[in-house]
Amino acid sequence: MIHAPRDVRSEQVPDSALVQDTDAVVRVVASCVCGSDLWPYRGENPVKGPTRIGHEFVGIVEQVGAEVSTLAEGDFVVAPFVYSDGVCAHCRRGMHTSCVRGGGYGGEDRDGNLVDGGQGELVRVPLADGTLVATPDQPDQAMVPTLLALSDVMGTGHHAAVAAGVGPGSTVAVVGDGAVGLCGVLAADRLGAERVIAMSRHEPRQALARRFGAEEVVATRGEEGVAAVRELTDGMGADAVLECVGTGAAMQQAIGCARPGGRVGYVGVPHGVKLPIGDMFARNVGIAGGVAPVRAYLSELLDDVWSGRLDPGPVFDLELPLDQVAEGYAAMDERRAIKTLLRT
Amino acid sequence: MIHAPRDVRSEQVPDSALVQDTDAVVRVVASCVCGSDLWPYRGENPVKGPTRIGHEFVGIVEQVGAEVSTLAEGDFVVAPFVYSDGVCAHCRRGMHTSCVRGGGYGGEDRDGNLVDGGQGELVRVPLADGTLVATPDQPDQAMVPTLLALSDVMGTGHHAAVAAGVGPGSTVAVVGDGAVGLCGVLAADRLGAERVIAMSRHEPRQALARRFGAEEVVATRGEEGVAAVRELTDGMGADAVLECVGTGAAMQQAIGCARPGGRVGYVGVPHGVKLPIGDMFARNVGIAGGVAPVRAYLSELLDDVWSGRLDPGPVFDLELPLDQVAEGYAAMDERRAIKTLLRT
Repeated sequence: MIHAPRDVRSEQVPDSALVQDTDAVVRVVASCVCGSDLWPYRGENPVKGPTRIGHEFVGIVEQVGAEVSTLAEGDFVVAPFVYSDGVCAHCRRGMHTSCVRGGGYGGEDRDGNLVDGGQGELVRVPLADGTLVATPDQPDQAMVPTLLALSDVMGTGHHAAVAAGVGPGSTVAVVGDGAVGLCGVLAADRLGAERVIAMSRHEPRQALARRFGAEEVVATRGEEGVAAVRELTDGMGADAVLECVGTGAAMQQAIGCARPGGRVGYVGVPHGVKLPIGDMFARNVGIAGGVAPVRAYLSELLDDVWSGRLDPGPVFDLELPLDQVAEGYAAMDERRAIKTLLRT
Repeated sequence: MIHAPRDVRSEQVPDSALVQDTDAVVRVVASCVCGSDLWPYRGENPVKGPTRIGHEFVGIVEQVGAEVSTLAEGDFVVAPFVYSDGVCAHCRRGMHTSCVRGGGYGGEDRDGNLVDGGQGELVRVPLADGTLVATPDQPDQAMVPTLLALSDVMGTGHHAAVAAGVGPGSTVAVVGDGAVGLCGVLAADRLGAERVIAMSRHEPRQALARRFGAEEVVATRGEEGVAAVRELTDGMGADAVLECVGTGAAMQQAIGCARPGGRVGYVGVPHGVKLPIGDMFARNVGIAGGVAPVRAYLSELLDDVWSGRLDPGPVFDLELPLDQVAEGYAAMDERRAIKTLLRT
């Protein structure tokens, strides 16, 4: 529960139970703290009294409603960070985040029933068939972080890369060295980028970016960072830039790093972003992206994870039991950890 | 020459001559007035003393410099609205508007030599090989408007459609019923759009939009217009929206008309545009476009024009001799004409 800025607590709440016939109840195996959870934690988004929090988790199906047909008790499932029906016109076009019946964790569904937060022991998942994806078999413990990354950060980094138009031969710059930015590096590499330039000032994150496929690391930011990326690209700029932060400065940097005709894929929740339309127009720099429809990519990414071709697991560099959730937030807030995994 | 807002005059100036070996001098057969010429005409862009104006023309090559290899005296040529070398890294990627040696008409080139405006009798065209495209043969008089439209508006409407990702099966909305918007309708239809919705309040322009391939016309604008487009698309919004005006209201309308995951292709020179990043993020609406690299599309569009498959010529609904240029501007300013053609 988040009570107020910098006040996250592990508390006993009533156990989740099925409410709708399309629900599943999932016993959480692992959940995690998202960069976007830090906005209310830091008081930059309002906190309205004690609220359940968290939206990334994997676990085992404990119960399914009468109408759930694709899942069974005992399945190990990955939960995308929003729920969706999978059948509406938006879902059919891969825009599950705009599902007409969908919503988020830690609030109420459209019928006014509580939807649990992901940072907990049990979660009632609405629209389970359209939301949860079961793994082919039970994973071993070592694979849990890798699967958990599919719940948000890997799909979100992938969305940034897709939105930026990354493909074989692309030169890609990545702004942001958080878990999403690092997954963006991995996604760009996976999509065939010829060259990935990671922008990071933090040595351990630089190392992880290189491990994930970055050929170059630029440690400067702002105008200096833009100049460095242009220098690395013969004065051109990058074909595709992934903006994985959400601040105005990061977006400015991302647009500056794009070559004329290039595109920025952005997935950082915008806070104080003003787009420089004049520069974008003059240089034909486009932007696309937004809240990532992780569910649309889950099957494809899960295939690669299950076969061992893709492993975003290393973005988790701190693992804590769920009752130490407060320390998990503090470590990320103070940048002592890239991303905190909470074992239940 | 433009002397001040609402003061455009036909005047005698010294004849153009070759300056660089890469120049050509073109005798203008027809030029025209651009929507963007109206910004200084209306005083919304500053006018710094008497300046040559106009950047869209077709004509006959009168002289070529020693280094020009692809053009010969007597060729009928289409001039894109900026000049470009055709060989730099940006040109090679189809971004001729970002050419490292390129520039615009009616100012000075990078060596400080005057570049004529397009609304005149003779124009010195820098970097002629990289800029001008000759027609396969001499066109007849009836084809002159069609070819002249390739100089800017048809290529610009096409750029909006390409930037918005229009392809076979797309549902497309077009904001703006000027010459560019109407060419956007034509371009979307040519690219295989399943359905084109033109947004126009003016009956003659509505008729031309239908002739160019629009299945539907929405006569409302702003929030009402957005609601009408959503209603026509089962509440979804359009896959692709072409923004062909450049005002804040037009951009807002365009973004509102796009479905979640849709894209706005914009080519209107932005004036007072503030992008609603929060809405764009939440609904995954991207924007791309900018100043159109018309040269990149010229061969492809010219092929279609020459073979009779494409005719943007009807966007010209007023034809005047060059010395009546002032009336040509006034008619467009007062929306008595969609687009004025000036015969030399």
